[in-house]
Amino acid sequence: MRITAIRETTTSLSSPMRNAFIDFSGMTNSVVAVEMDVIRDGRPVVGFGFNSNGRYAQGGVLRERLIPRLLEADPQSLLDATGHNLDPARIQACMMTNEKPGGHGERAFAVGAIDMAIWDVVAKIEERPLYRVIADRFNNGNYDAKVPVYPGGGYYDPVKGLDGLRTEMQGYRDSGYTLMKMKIGGGSIDEDMLRIQTALEVARDGENLAVDANAALDLDTAMNYASAMAQYDLAWFEEPVDPLDYEAYSEMAKVCTMPIATAENLYSRGDALNLIRHGGLRRDKDWLQFDPSLCYGPSEFISIVRMAEGMGWATRRHGPHGGQQLGLHLAAGLQLGGTETYPLVFQPFGGFGDETVIENGLVQPPEAPGLGVETKSKLYNMVLKPLIDG
Amino acid sequence: MRITAIRETTTSLSSPMRNAFIDFSGMTNSVVAVEMDVIRDGRPVVGFGFNSNGRYAQGGVLRERLIPRLLEADPQSLLDATGHNLDPARIQACMMTNEKPGGHGERAFAVGAIDMAIWDVVAKIEERPLYRVIADRFNNGNYDAKVPVYPGGGYYDPVKGLDGLRTEMQGYRDSGYTLMKMKIGGGSIDEDMLRIQTALEVARDGENLAVDANAALDLDTAMNYASAMAQYDLAWFEEPVDPLDYEAYSEMAKVCTMPIATAENLYSRGDALNLIRHGGLRRDKDWLQFDPSLCYGPSEFISIVRMAEGMGWATRRHGPHGGQQLGLHLAAGLQLGGTETYPLVFQPFGGFGDETVIENGLVQPPEAPGLGVETKSKLYNMVLKPLIDG
Repeated sequence: MRITAIRETTTSLSSPMRNAFIDFSGMTNSVVAVEMDVIRDGRPVVGFGFNSNGRYAQGGVLRERLIPRLLEADPQSLLDATGHNLDPARIQACMMTNEKPGGHGERAFAVGAIDMAIWDVVAKIEERPLYRVIADRFNNGNYDAKVPVYPGGGYYDPVKGLDGLRTEMQGYRDSGYTLMKMKIGGGSIDEDMLRIQTALEVARDGENLAVDANAALDLDTAMNYASAMAQYDLAWFEEPVDPLDYEAYSEMAKVCTMPIATAENLYSRGDALNLIRHGGLRRDKDWLQFDPSLCYGPSEFISIVRMAEGMGWATRRHGPHGGQQLGLHLAAGLQLGGTETYPLVFQPFGGFGDETVIENGLVQPPEAPGLGVETKSKLYNMVLKPLIDG
Repeated sequence: MRITAIRETTTSLSSPMRNAFIDFSGMTNSVVAVEMDVIRDGRPVVGFGFNSNGRYAQGGVLRERLIPRLLEADPQSLLDATGHNLDPARIQACMMTNEKPGGHGERAFAVGAIDMAIWDVVAKIEERPLYRVIADRFNNGNYDAKVPVYPGGGYYDPVKGLDGLRTEMQGYRDSGYTLMKMKIGGGSIDEDMLRIQTALEVARDGENLAVDANAALDLDTAMNYASAMAQYDLAWFEEPVDPLDYEAYSEMAKVCTMPIATAENLYSRGDALNLIRHGGLRRDKDWLQFDPSLCYGPSEFISIVRMAEGMGWATRRHGPHGGQQLGLHLAAGLQLGGTETYPLVFQPFGGFGDETVIENGLVQPPEAPGLGVETKSKLYNMVLKPLIDG
């Protein structure tokens, strides 16, 4: 059994909106297809992986370092002990050969895309949905049949204004979501309070609305936001300050009555360890939002969840960033607190399969083998199929 | 005044040796040339930048993100207040447009190469050596006429053995170096003690020999090394453990009698802040070794030195990693504790200009305008000139 080809391409994630830190008009991502010499349903098994958003395509790292290492490795060295499937840990080690420690940036995103594709292959070879494979290997077979999901939305947009925000939020509600998220920190605090009040007209209860400053605030401003928002009892305040400023998080956690959420911009187990050690976050209410497609892939994400558990953090306190089907499988298979999704933005990658129903804010993971990205027809037909067809 | 072209290429840094973490046989780096419409000596001014070693070329990030942003910017927006030179801070901000916070990896190396070239341009337009420009702008005009330098060497090599190590160290001594550095952590502790004793035959005094484990050890093993080496009073113990494991550094600093050195694998001001806040390092003896060509360039390096100073760290406690002329200019212009150099490895990038004399472990920075990379003929003729000639 061996990998016969690894294909990669750069696709556009261009979207007109912005958060408090960047605009997305030039955004790209990398898509990877790992082809095996294993046949299922009369065709070679192909696993797909791709990054979420915000960090650009990584074709250079993929073509120059990771793909050659995997294709030049002894195929036997990449298999598990049974010899009947790939071993994601061995593949991770092969990709990281001759890579120095620290500096967890673009390399983590490139490894993440391949690791995602490898897990898609592994589950397809087992002919089971990925969440069941994860549950068996990492969670004593336990899984959640339904997962709490919320839309990442409420971006700043040059034209939509308060009416547009209200309409967007109402759309989420009409689609079956209960919890919703919106951006703050990109305007004045007064403007943002108006935006929050507008969203609350739809969300009704503060616990149904989370806000996200995308790390654009300094500590003082973040504290001012926290005070101004305290009256609403919102679901959480996401990335108030720079993701690496653990001391600032620790200061926030001392006084902020609402839950704090962070970690989508930390990309390794080492950075995760520092956040937990030094960030002062509260195990009973705060949220950890590592992005499994960016933090060296689901393998490292699972390792982070288990490490955090050893430090007193329940798996329910994780809600992965990224808004893709990968987060849904991990949330179901590890019994996390839920996952983000992007029903409207970052298309055709955001959101779930075509037939997925959202009801009371809950979603069932797909039963197709692997990730089930084939059940998302636009993604499959526009991006994935052309990649394997060459 | 404007940038007329930015060229980049990938070069091989292939070397047969290894440290405790990686081998360098497939190592590459990025070289950048920034061409101006300013004429000096009858030719357009061209600034050169390149990364040190260990982190591979960054052509993807350069071509897809950084270079287009700079070439598409209003040229006026990249100039300083006089309009007669480039403004490195504005150029840095332009390169980082629409880049999210955190994840300081490959992006930092790509920005670092361009930032280095920009500083070369700035000094060439002023027709002065870079160290004098840095001294005037950041150090009240003060600079060191001579800088302590030491060779990064003593790598593991499949064939050279203890005799080869002794010969290498003797060669450094014969070239005028007093302080030397060797690798440890890639064999057993007993083997490494033999290697240290062999190097000490040449270095004579422990304060003339530093050791570098390249982050390959766990905390317990690092502690064992520290105990075994305590008898030698060595110059420092470099990267005993993972560069991001601040708590482990803090534990080491409580008991390790010899100075500890680290930071070459931290690539941003945010990571530097965390090391200083949480790493427990000792201001009176430990060493900070940020790599100016990798940590978003000399601009960010200078910002880190100044931030550390505000937290009680004297500029003399910095000794930049990287082994290039850039470190020499920064050490002279900011009056740091010294700089690393690679006289033998990572050619043709390692080491100083052809005419540079090392005497009693001290080196004079070059007086040529800019970095003076033109005074290193192999580097200029083999890499830099072909890049600008296309």
